[in-house]
Amino acid sequence: MSSYTRPYSSHQSYAPSAPSLTESYEAQHTYNSSRPSNHGHQQPPHLAAYGYGQSSSSYGYSGFPPGTNSEVIRSFQMVDRDRSGFIDENELQQALSSGYQKFNTRTIRLLMFLFKNPHDSLRIGPKEFAALWSYLGQWRGVFERYDRDRSGKIDLFELRDALYGLGYAVPPAVFKVLISKYDDGSGRKIELDFDSFVEIGMILKGLTEKFKEKDSRYTGTATFGYDEFMSTVIPFLVTYD
Amino acid sequence: MSSYTRPYSSHQSYAPSAPSLTESYEAQHTYNSSRPSNHGHQQPPHLAAYGYGQSSSSYGYSGFPPGTNSEVIRSFQMVDRDRSGFIDENELQQALSSGYQKFNTRTIRLLMFLFKNPHDSLRIGPKEFAALWSYLGQWRGVFERYDRDRSGKIDLFELRDALYGLGYAVPPAVFKVLISKYDDGSGRKIELDFDSFVEIGMILKGLTEKFKEKDSRYTGTATFGYDEFMSTVIPFLVTYD
Repeated sequence: MSSYTRPYSSHQSYAPSAPSLTESYEAQHTYNSSRPSNHGHQQPPHLAAYGYGQSSSSYGYSGFPPGTNSEVIRSFQMVDRDRSGFIDENELQQALSSGYQKFNTRTIRLLMFLFKNPHDSLRIGPKEFAALWSYLGQWRGVFERYDRDRSGKIDLFELRDALYGLGYAVPPAVFKVLISKYDDGSGRKIELDFDSFVEIGMILKGLTEKFKEKDSRYTGTATFGYDEFMSTVIPFLVTYD
Repeated sequence: MSSYTRPYSSHQSYAPSAPSLTESYEAQHTYNSSRPSNHGHQQPPHLAAYGYGQSSSSYGYSGFPPGTNSEVIRSFQMVDRDRSGFIDENELQQALSSGYQKFNTRTIRLLMFLFKNPHDSLRIGPKEFAALWSYLGQWRGVFERYDRDRSGKIDLFELRDALYGLGYAVPPAVFKVLISKYDDGSGRKIELDFDSFVEIGMILKGLTEKFKEKDSRYTGTATFGYDEFMSTVIPFLVTYD
């Protein structure tokens, strides 16, 4: 786990308060009817979006960490129809899209690639799914905190602040490259939805962790042999199919 | 220019002899009616496929290196309809597809990204187009040399040999990652067409050059700061849209 990120434990029980993105989402995920309005306050990201307001036992479905929220388990079960205990990228897309916005296939593959067991093929089990859900909940909270007009979009200033809120102080040169694909050259204001936000976040998370693996003494530099460099970077490209 | 690659000068005039991939391609690109059959012989890659059998003046179209083949200039002119002197990714795709197989958008973007002027936006001019064409001609020759049954596909053993023929001795671990996306897990024999071959080649070429920039003393290792590492790798990912 990278020290750049500060994931919240699923056992914490913040009152859900982050504004929801859509009406349909709101309807399906309201766990607390008396939601305090703390919009615009600087406070930690909330876990409500993905159901971290309450926890439950694992419904007898093995593999989930103790205390996993029932919503997480239900989502997993719903797509894991053959009860194999694993879901593939299509199933992950379904699980995250139910009652929520749809994620791009690229984002799904990046999520899959970064959360799956490294020794496993491209599929994830209950433990990884719960971790992924927890991350997304945290990221959703941050995104919504910066989406002040609740448009479902954040601009580049808000993106930088939001990434900072997740623990990533992105250097200007890197930021410029990261957002280049969203700039159509028209001079129009660039705005990102949650899908793109997660995609950018996953690239940052994945590459930062790889860098830190090679920078175990925190020198700020990492030395790669040719094979290492290629083997580290190429998986990000082939995931990006 | 990476010393891993050995591009041929456009001034060389090998007799066209590499077998063409498709009938339609054959019909449109036969520059030499008496094509000697040297199939299977170990000889240098041929440039015939992209029109390097003959050279000509640049038809008054400025920007092409002296001696650029007329076919190259014609292809560029055909897609650069506004005579701006630059073509974008859609136009590049058209230029390379005319009379030839279609390249995937991903491959086109990688080609664009690796051949464009680094200080320019995502477009290429005559000089870069001629260099790209030359590369593709060389790669086509190598591909066809290994496609012994002229099926338009090469298998993984042939892929490794073909990449070696282009100057890339790919470590086994890297090779495994590179071809992973073509493996559907069914155990079926993996075969690659020219498009995929070029895509893989471009990834190798691009990353190898980046590595070598940071390994100027040929130590076999490259040291990156965090910003450098991120700024180096991310463009490959955002190109891969």
